[in-house]
Amino acid sequence: MNNRHPLDNYMNEISDIVSTALSDVLPKEWDIPSSLKEAMNYSLMAGGKRLRPLLVIAACEAGGGTREAALPVACAVEMVHTYSLVHDDLPAMDNDDFRRGKPTNHKVFGEAAAILAGDALLTHAFYSVIQASRKHGIPAERVLSIVEDLAVYAGPRGMVGGQVADMEGEQGLTSLEQLEYIHLHKTSDLIMFSLIAGGRIAGVTDEQLDALRTYGHHIGLAFQIQDDILDLTGDETKLGKKTQSDVKQQKVTYPYFIGLEASKEEVERLTSEAKAVVTGAGFADPLRLIEIADFLKSRDH
Amino acid sequence: MNNRHPLDNYMNEISDIVSTALSDVLPKEWDIPSSLKEAMNYSLMAGGKRLRPLLVIAACEAGGGTREAALPVACAVEMVHTYSLVHDDLPAMDNDDFRRGKPTNHKVFGEAAAILAGDALLTHAFYSVIQASRKHGIPAERVLSIVEDLAVYAGPRGMVGGQVADMEGEQGLTSLEQLEYIHLHKTSDLIMFSLIAGGRIAGVTDEQLDALRTYGHHIGLAFQIQDDILDLTGDETKLGKKTQSDVKQQKVTYPYFIGLEASKEEVERLTSEAKAVVTGAGFADPLRLIEIADFLKSRDH
Repeated sequence: MNNRHPLDNYMNEISDIVSTALSDVLPKEWDIPSSLKEAMNYSLMAGGKRLRPLLVIAACEAGGGTREAALPVACAVEMVHTYSLVHDDLPAMDNDDFRRGKPTNHKVFGEAAAILAGDALLTHAFYSVIQASRKHGIPAERVLSIVEDLAVYAGPRGMVGGQVADMEGEQGLTSLEQLEYIHLHKTSDLIMFSLIAGGRIAGVTDEQLDALRTYGHHIGLAFQIQDDILDLTGDETKLGKKTQSDVKQQKVTYPYFIGLEASKEEVERLTSEAKAVVTGAGFADPLRLIEIADFLKSRDH
Repeated sequence: MNNRHPLDNYMNEISDIVSTALSDVLPKEWDIPSSLKEAMNYSLMAGGKRLRPLLVIAACEAGGGTREAALPVACAVEMVHTYSLVHDDLPAMDNDDFRRGKPTNHKVFGEAAAILAGDALLTHAFYSVIQASRKHGIPAERVLSIVEDLAVYAGPRGMVGGQVADMEGEQGLTSLEQLEYIHLHKTSDLIMFSLIAGGRIAGVTDEQLDALRTYGHHIGLAFQIQDDILDLTGDETKLGKKTQSDVKQQKVTYPYFIGLEASKEEVERLTSEAKAVVTGAGFADPLRLIEIADFLKSRDH
C-alpha cells in the first residue's frame, strides 16, 4: 500500500485525498441552509496540516487496512478538530480574529453562525464515522467502538475537559500537573483517538491498539512541548505567527517549568519511546508511523 | 410493562427515572474539571418536561421493549436538547437571561463555560447512546443506526439547520414554507428521532419505524402550532412566561399565516392522523402513544 516515496510526498498525497473527501462531506443535494453549509466549509477547507487524518490513515495502513476504509473517520476527526478551533476562536473564548492567515469563522459569518457551524461540524463528524460501516463494510461492533472512543476523547473527559482546564489556567491557576492535564486532553486525546480509530478500522489486536495509544500519547505531548519551544526560539516567517507570545501572555509552558534544554530532551525521549513502541508491536508496516514521529520532532513550524 | 394508571402518573414516573439516570451520566470517579461537570449538570437538572425521553421510552414500550434498555438513548436525547437550549440562550443567539425561571447557563457560569458545557453535552450524548449496546446488549447494528439517526436529526440537515433558518427568519425573511422548515427541523426532528430510536431499541419492523416517524412529525408540528396558539391565547401564570411575545417581537407564527381558528383545526387534524397511524401499525401496545398525542394537544402550558 505505501509506496516508499519520501514522507513529505506521502503527507501531501494524504492531505489531498482528505481535502477532496472533506469538500464532499455535505453533498450538494442535501437540504441545508446555504449559509450554514458555507460557514462549515469555510473552516473545513481553510487548510491546516491535516495531521489527525494523516494519523488515522497511517495507523490503518500500518495495521494492513486500506486508506479508503479509513477516510470517513479521517474526515470525522478533522471535523471535530475544526469545530474545536471555530469555538475556541470565539470572542467569549480566545477572541482570535485570524487563523492560518484568514479571518476566523465568526469574523466572516458572525458569532451565532460560528457557534452553530461548530455544533453542526461536531454532530456531522459522528455521521461520517458511521460511513465506515455503510460504505466500506467495517463491522458494526468496531465502528461502535470508534463512536464510543470519539465521544470519550473529544468529550468532557477528553478534549472539552482540556479546553476548560486551559481556560481556567489562563486565570493563573496552573501547576505543571495542570499543564500536563491540559496538553493531554486538549491536544493528545484527539491524536490518540486518530491512531486507535485507524487501528480499529484495520482490525489490529488489542495489544496493537495499546501501542497506538501510547505512541499517540507520546507524539501528542512531544508535539505540544515542541510548540512551546518554537514559540520561544522559532522563526516568525516559518511559523506564520509572532514568537514569544506565550511569554507576553504570561502563559505557562514546558520551558517555563523545566527549562528549554530539558524540554528539548523531553521531546527527544518521547519521540524515541513512541517509535520503539510501534516498532515492537508487530505491525505489518510501521515505517510511516516512525517517520511521522521523527518529522513532528524536527518540524520548525 | 405499562400499568394502566393515568397518563400523568406514567409521565411523572418516567420523568423521575430519567432525571435519576441523568444525574448519573457523569459518574463521580471520572476525571472531569469540576466547573465543567457543574455547568453540564446545572442545565441537565434544571427540570423541563422530559418530553423527548418520554417519547423514546413510550415508543420502545409500544414495540414491546423495556424502559431500562431505552434509558441510555432517552438520556442522550435530553442531553442534545439541553445543549441546544444552552447554546440558543447565549448572548450571540437569543440572549436570554432566564429559562424555566432559573438564570441561564451563561449567566451563572459565563459565556465560555456555557459554550463548552453545550459542546460537552452534545459529545457525551453519543457516548450515552452506545451504552444501549454496552449495558443492555442491544445489537451493534441497531445502535449504529441510532447514532446515524442522531447525527442526521440533530445535525446540519436537522436541528442545527432549523436553528440557522430560525435565526435568519428573525431578520424578516420568513414565508410559510420557511416557517415549516424551521418547525420541522428545530422541533420535530428531535421528536422524530426519539420515537424512531425507541422503536429501534425494541426491534420493531421498518413499517413500524415509518409509523413512528409520521407520528413524530405530526405531534412535533402540532406541538409547535400549539405553542404559537398559547402565546396568543394562553394563561401567563400557567405558561410561566409573558404571552403575546411573538406579536411583540414580530415573529411570524402559524396564526399569523393561517389565522387562529385554522391553526387550532390544524392541531386537531395532525393529532388525529398521528393517533391513526400508530393505531394501525400493529404495535404490541400503542395506547401510551395515543394518550401522549391527546395530552400534547390539550396542554395549556
